[in-house]
Amino acid sequence: MKILVIHGPNLQLLGVRNPEVYGSVDLDTINQQLRAIAAENQSSIDVHQSNHEGEIVDTIGRSRGEYSGILINPAAYTHTSVAIRDAVEAAQIPTVEVHLSNIYARESFRQHSLIAPVCVGQISGFGPQSYEYGLKALLGHLSA
Amino acid sequence: MKILVIHGPNLQLLGVRNPEVYGSVDLDTINQQLRAIAAENQSSIDVHQSNHEGEIVDTIGRSRGEYSGILINPAAYTHTSVAIRDAVEAAQIPTVEVHLSNIYARESFRQHSLIAPVCVGQISGFGPQSYEYGLKALLGHLSA
Amino acid sequence: MKILVIHGPNLQLLGVRNPEVYGSVDLDTINQQLRAIAAENQSSIDVHQSNHEGEIVDTIGRSRGEYSGILINPAAYTHTSVAIRDAVEAAQIPTVEVHLSNIYARESFRQHSLIAPVCVGQISGFGPQSYEYGLKALLGHLSA
Amino acid sequence: MKILVIHGPNLQLLGVRNPEVYGSVDLDTINQQLRAIAAENQSSIDVHQSNHEGEIVDTIGRSRGEYSGILINPAAYTHTSVAIRDAVEAAQIPTVEVHLSNIYARESFRQHSLIAPVCVGQISGFGPQSYEYGLKALLGHLSA
Amino acid sequence: MKILVIHGPNLQLLGVRNPEVYGSVDLDTINQQLRAIAAENQSSIDVHQSNHEGEIVDTIGRSRGEYSGILINPAAYTHTSVAIRDAVEAAQIPTVEVHLSNIYARESFRQHSLIAPVCVGQISGFGPQSYEYGLKALLGHLSA
Amino acid sequence: MKILVIHGPNLQLLGVRNPEVYGSVDLDTINQQLRAIAAENQSSIDVHQSNHEGEIVDTIGRSRGEYSGILINPAAYTHTSVAIRDAVEAAQIPTVEVHLSNIYARESFRQHSLIAPVCVGQISGFGPQSYEYGLKALLGHLSA
Amino acid sequence: MKILVIHGPNLQLLGVRNPEVYGSVDLDTINQQLRAIAAENQSSIDVHQSNHEGEIVDTIGRSRGEYSGILINPAAYTHTSVAIRDAVEAAQIPTVEVHLSNIYARESFRQHSLIAPVCVGQISGFGPQSYEYGLKALLGHLSA
Amino acid sequence: MKILVIHGPNLQLLGVRNPEVYGSVDLDTINQQLRAIAAENQSSIDVHQSNHEGEIVDTIGRSRGEYSGILINPAAYTHTSVAIRDAVEAAQIPTVEVHLSNIYARESFRQHSLIAPVCVGQISGFGPQSYEYGLKALLGHLSA
Amino acid sequence: MKILVIHGPNLQLLGVRNPEVYGSVDLDTINQQLRAIAAENQSSIDVHQSNHEGEIVDTIGRSRGEYSGILINPAAYTHTSVAIRDAVEAAQIPTVEVHLSNIYARESFRQHSLIAPVCVGQISGFGPQSYEYGLKALLGHLSA
Amino acid sequence: MKILVIHGPNLQLLGVRNPEVYGSVDLDTINQQLRAIAAENQSSIDVHQSNHEGEIVDTIGRSRGEYSGILINPAAYTHTSVAIRDAVEAAQIPTVEVHLSNIYARESFRQHSLIAPVCVGQISGFGPQSYEYGLKALLGHLSA
Amino acid sequence: MKILVIHGPNLQLLGVRNPEVYGSVDLDTINQQLRAIAAENQSSIDVHQSNHEGEIVDTIGRSRGEYSGILINPAAYTHTSVAIRDAVEAAQIPTVEVHLSNIYARESFRQHSLIAPVCVGQISGFGPQSYEYGLKALLGHLSA
Amino acid sequence: MKILVIHGPNLQLLGVRNPEVYGSVDLDTINQQLRAIAAENQSSIDVHQSNHEGEIVDTIGRSRGEYSGILINPAAYTHTSVAIRDAVEAAQIPTVEVHLSNIYARESFRQHSLIAPVCVGQISGFGPQSYEYGLKALLGHLSA
Repeated sequence: MKILVIHGPNLQLLGVRNPEVYGSVDLDTINQQLRAIAAENQSSIDVHQSNHEGEIVDTIGRSRGEYSGILINPAAYTHTSVAIRDAVEAAQIPTVEVHLSNIYARESFRQHSLIAPVCVGQISGFGPQSYEYGLKALLGHLSA
Repeated sequence: MKILVIHGPNLQLLGVRNPEVYGSVDLDTINQQLRAIAAENQSSIDVHQSNHEGEIVDTIGRSRGEYSGILINPAAYTHTSVAIRDAVEAAQIPTVEVHLSNIYARESFRQHSLIAPVCVGQISGFGPQSYEYGLKALLGHLSA
Repeated sequence: MKILVIHGPNLQLLGVRNPEVYGSVDLDTINQQLRAIAAENQSSIDVHQSNHEGEIVDTIGRSRGEYSGILINPAAYTHTSVAIRDAVEAAQIPTVEVHLSNIYARESFRQHSLIAPVCVGQISGFGPQSYEYGLKALLGHLSA
Repeated sequence: MKILVIHGPNLQLLGVRNPEVYGSVDLDTINQQLRAIAAENQSSIDVHQSNHEGEIVDTIGRSRGEYSGILINPAAYTHTSVAIRDAVEAAQIPTVEVHLSNIYARESFRQHSLIAPVCVGQISGFGPQSYEYGLKALLGHLSA
Repeated sequence: MKILVIHGPNLQLLGVRNPEVYGSVDLDTINQQLRAIAAENQSSIDVHQSNHEGEIVDTIGRSRGEYSGILINPAAYTHTSVAIRDAVEAAQIPTVEVHLSNIYARESFRQHSLIAPVCVGQISGFGPQSYEYGLKALLGHLSA
Repeated sequence: MKILVIHGPNLQLLGVRNPEVYGSVDLDTINQQLRAIAAENQSSIDVHQSNHEGEIVDTIGRSRGEYSGILINPAAYTHTSVAIRDAVEAAQIPTVEVHLSNIYARESFRQHSLIAPVCVGQISGFGPQSYEYGLKALLGHLSA
Repeated sequence: MKILVIHGPNLQLLGVRNPEVYGSVDLDTINQQLRAIAAENQSSIDVHQSNHEGEIVDTIGRSRGEYSGILINPAAYTHTSVAIRDAVEAAQIPTVEVHLSNIYARESFRQHSLIAPVCVGQISGFGPQSYEYGLKALLGHLSA
Repeated sequence: MKILVIHGPNLQLLGVRNPEVYGSVDLDTINQQLRAIAAENQSSIDVHQSNHEGEIVDTIGRSRGEYSGILINPAAYTHTSVAIRDAVEAAQIPTVEVHLSNIYARESFRQHSLIAPVCVGQISGFGPQSYEYGLKALLGHLSA
Repeated sequence: MKILVIHGPNLQLLGVRNPEVYGSVDLDTINQQLRAIAAENQSSIDVHQSNHEGEIVDTIGRSRGEYSGILINPAAYTHTSVAIRDAVEAAQIPTVEVHLSNIYARESFRQHSLIAPVCVGQISGFGPQSYEYGLKALLGHLSA
Repeated sequence: MKILVIHGPNLQLLGVRNPEVYGSVDLDTINQQLRAIAAENQSSIDVHQSNHEGEIVDTIGRSRGEYSGILINPAAYTHTSVAIRDAVEAAQIPTVEVHLSNIYARESFRQHSLIAPVCVGQISGFGPQSYEYGLKALLGHLSA
Repeated sequence: MKILVIHGPNLQLLGVRNPEVYGSVDLDTINQQLRAIAAENQSSIDVHQSNHEGEIVDTIGRSRGEYSGILINPAAYTHTSVAIRDAVEAAQIPTVEVHLSNIYARESFRQHSLIAPVCVGQISGFGPQSYEYGLKALLGHLSA
Repeated sequence: MKILVIHGPNLQLLGVRNPEVYGSVDLDTINQQLRAIAAENQSSIDVHQSNHEGEIVDTIGRSRGEYSGILINPAAYTHTSVAIRDAVEAAQIPTVEVHLSNIYARESFRQHSLIAPVCVGQISGFGPQSYEYGLKALLGHLSA
């Protein structure tokens, strides 16, 4: 199985800058861990990071036929992007939404996800491990 | 008269994928029909599809002087883009908004258009024909 | 095909009074144009104008079996009549909603239609032409 | 005791049309059942169906002195008519509100009744039997 | 000057029934007082009471050219009728809104008037005298 | 047929205390009347009163297979208990909701029922008779 | 009878400045007209203008025993002062609220009066005449 | 490490009844899987199911000192229980919230969790696997 | 006089655990202080702590005839329990609500009390002293 | 310790006027009782009553260095004055808010206090005794 | 040019008290800096600080003819004073609103200004410099 | 010091088109003025205009280490972009928000800024001068 992993806006900064604030795990490390988990499950991942809502929509739009599942951290676009929601819905590929932080313990405008209703499920609050659990949950869902 | 036709996010998938869901009419067919209607009215169209809010803003920003009218299906950006609204308002070119589906019979967050208040009018619910009626209405408005 | 055309409250005044405000096209002229369009499409129309919500409900209630489609400008009742909505829904006849003005560019209480969710589609903002495009869209829908 | 039974908008269609949708019980059958129940209780009913808010207000306005109670299914006017509410309140005749469907399991705009606060009670969800229970409840209330 | 006086729904009951509740002044008495005031001001009134929203819209629709001003107690339709608002606005005749009770001391749904924004002014809370002051204010406005 | 009757919080006080306020009919009398009605219909009832949300959930959770229908007055839990709603929904047993008082004539927080949307219907406002009509309506529904 | 007339904030500017905007009638002229009306009715007025919420509260607090009625234009404090509302309510003196402009045709924050619910009635929209009608209505109420 | 697993209201029914609806996995099976996962991680679990908000509060109140973490599916109490939230907050034990279904794809009143803001994180939508991922995430968090 | 003192959910933990957070005063100490105050006033108290909404409702339901007043800290149930409100209202025993913390300086969902409107008064923010002042205020009210 | 006691708008009328409504205790009596309580605690009070928001802000602004605590009944300004809130916050002097009536049993606009979030605590509903308990609570807080 | 500088409630305390909290710059220093800037621009300022809404209204009411512009920090009255807004609007003198703190990063009730819509512009967040930039912006606007 | 200046969507049109509407100052002129001001302060600016939300996020994401401050006019993205807000917050570079128009005097959806809460301050309403004052305020803040 091939899985598309999408990292939303500002995640390129993860672990690179302000490690005392965001932890020292960077996106490459997360991607390597995801690759390892995929490999253990006879699967592989392709990774895409973008700060552009349109690019994420483009990428999801090209995913069908090529990928069995999508693992997405929509970051700030979680709360504002109907376009990404529509892309996920149109793609008809099982999608899992993950968040590094517990979005329900943050500002009220971050407590609503436009994407979650068209996903299989959502995992939030476990830092870089949210991705790990999300990938395992996605693979589990696909092989169920 | 030259008309700018703008197709918003995810519309590149129309008719190509899931024809049982979205119908078998693809964007090319719609564009050909619009070209034919324009030709019958001594007019022509230029077509632009984009999943990027910014690209749509760019395109509208360059339209003035070149186009007499804009026909736009803002799709998901209908509900979230103040930037496209501002672009339409600044362009001072008569604009008609169209929707394939009846947006008033869908989820509540789809029942509000940020773009409509700065348009001549809005047509929604007639599938690919929404574009046709929209172009005719725009040409009619321009020649009134 | 026989189409029922319904003009809602205050539309009897159209073009007759304050032509400098509402334009010089009156309801008779609109009806004649609709008759001509219908004839070109081997169809005919019956016209009903009423300021009474109940009369409009009565008329829609008697329409089934007799009409293939309904073209309605509910005017002020657009925003307040659950009864007309229920009548349209019960009639199970394809219905198209039209508005002379762009209701989305007016007061906020005019931006919500109780009728649109049970219609095929909605056209607003093209003056008397809204009716024309609406009839064509309805006939197109019925022959699809 | 003489009871006034009022059927609101679109109820003239009940059972006559689309029996597969609305059931095969029509308004006449309901009225006969209500007459039988009334007779068993040494009472009688007068029946009024109208799609016109104003006519319902007229009818309630003339009811005082003549009727001991009112049984009303305000249908769509349940949610929009302050005028019928005022008529019921002014009449000072015990009134019971009934609904065929469970209005609390429908669209949110149907879950609020303007009439209920000025009634003795409300019964909803039991199809044609809602009228039966409503009449019995009204007669019970009047003889208590 | 000729003034159109409109009494909205349920006002036919005024003073006739429940005098201990609504006072003993009936609509005829009010109309006579209004006639006297009009006469003192070299004016006359025509009176129309209706429980039908549509009839009130009809009446206002026919008023132009014939009347210099409108005095209206829209009663329950104050809070629900966009159609009467549109009729007043279209008539372009100075209109004064009156209420017997102080609507701002009643239920919250009675504290908003859809009609007031298109009127010259509003008078509420003085019982039958509200009509008197309203007619004088209207005549004053017309002769200013 | 066996029917489960559930009385919610504070109903143990009915008729026992403050008879001048709540009437002199106590819960035992109501239960006896319900037993008589059930017997007349070749049915029987089991009665459960509890002030504990959890106990009511327990009871409904054990009801399946044993009861054909549930008659419930959720009292204060009407407005606050998602757990009872879920229990009713999971039980898949036809349920009728009853209220002694007309909840739509009380404080606004009492005018919304979380339970009603998963019930067959709702009866409110007829005092102890609400139970009687509710049981009859439930038996009628079950034998339809 | 002695009447206390209160003019709220910014009304000291009336007619003195920007006559092209606010009209040429100043507060003195209004006060003289009110004095004349009072005299015709064997009454007198005392006038108080203040931009200070506290001073208006002081003045109303001292009014009892001395005045039979209060005529108040609370101007901007209409929408924000619970203190003036409490003062009027505590004074237990019949009070009439007046406004020069039709506050219901202005910004939405001006369409709600905190004072009106504790007044006899409200008159708005008739310019300086609002005071006149208000005083007459107050005197009428007091002699009823 | 010892983990407290709490199953909220109605979960006792899982898999036992209506397997065609809820799946054939029952609470015992889930508990065994959780035990196995705990054992693999040199940990153990204690399980508590209750339909009683108070019992869940009691249980959490006794947990401190005895457990290193809490895994909770608050079910219906997710949306209504401030008491469970306070218990979790007072216990100062890392807590993970899980849901079988994707609560963000359900009724709007289920899309808000009172418990999530005081948890480490939340996992929803993966059926029985939500518990598994939740336990692993909790153990991961505790050993981080 | 005999006073019923009720401590709501999670208050069993007071002072026992996390003294650095909640202070070192535990519930026993508070109860002793209340007993002393009662004794000084020729009164006595009975104390009940429960995490169960239903138990609190049971307890209040049994209180009438036995107690002259109720002192209650409903804790989390302050904001969610209509059942406790109804129990207090039905008991017709003067009740005082107390809170350790100033609930108006906390999260917005804690700033509304469902219980306060049926109490004599409310005291919040004085830590354990809130109980003391509350008991004195209750005794003062009862002997007034 | 020196305590500043502030009485807000309209409280000068207390007990002087309408004793049958507000009780016969006037502000002087309350102040004497407060003086006595202060004296018993080796403290003294200064009293300030004002109907002027600005004066109350002035007074609080001058209080620092001179007073150890503030006892305030902001009356109507409770609900509208951000300025008094800011004054209390800037003064950094422990402040207790008191209300004669139970503000939570009154109109909804009286159920929110802008001042409470910056106070130590709030006491409402005990008539003149609210001041007494408030002063004791303040002195207790200051000596803790 | 002569500029009126208005400092709203509680600003008299600036820099005098709690310098560790509010900084050591007091109002006199700010006023001197403003005087210097004015002088550099061949202008002068008059300064007015008041805690009284009414006094600020008085001052603005007297400003016309005397001042070319107004620089105002309405402080707490920013969010509550329609009277100051009306005074600014009536004065027809260009006005600039300034705030020491970034009001958009504070409590939600501080994020809305009633005054800003009638000002030229608003500057917030730069501490004492907000005044400086505000005065320069005002002078720039006046000389444009 | 090096400052990053960001111009948001549609600002490329400034002064180039519709000078009678937007003024004749174009973006180049503004940028030159900003360069001059920077130079006077021993600083320099880099300018970036984009209609793409993602590009603005990219640009801010690369700014750290390179720039001492950011001056941003987010234009339409002010009201919709959580992504730009997160970028500013993550960059930890002092940022000043500017607007050409007074956004508080425009449509209600323009009166809320998602960006302002993470900025030092905001300046709006002074046309091209808003940038000037903004740059000076930013440089002032950085050298404080």
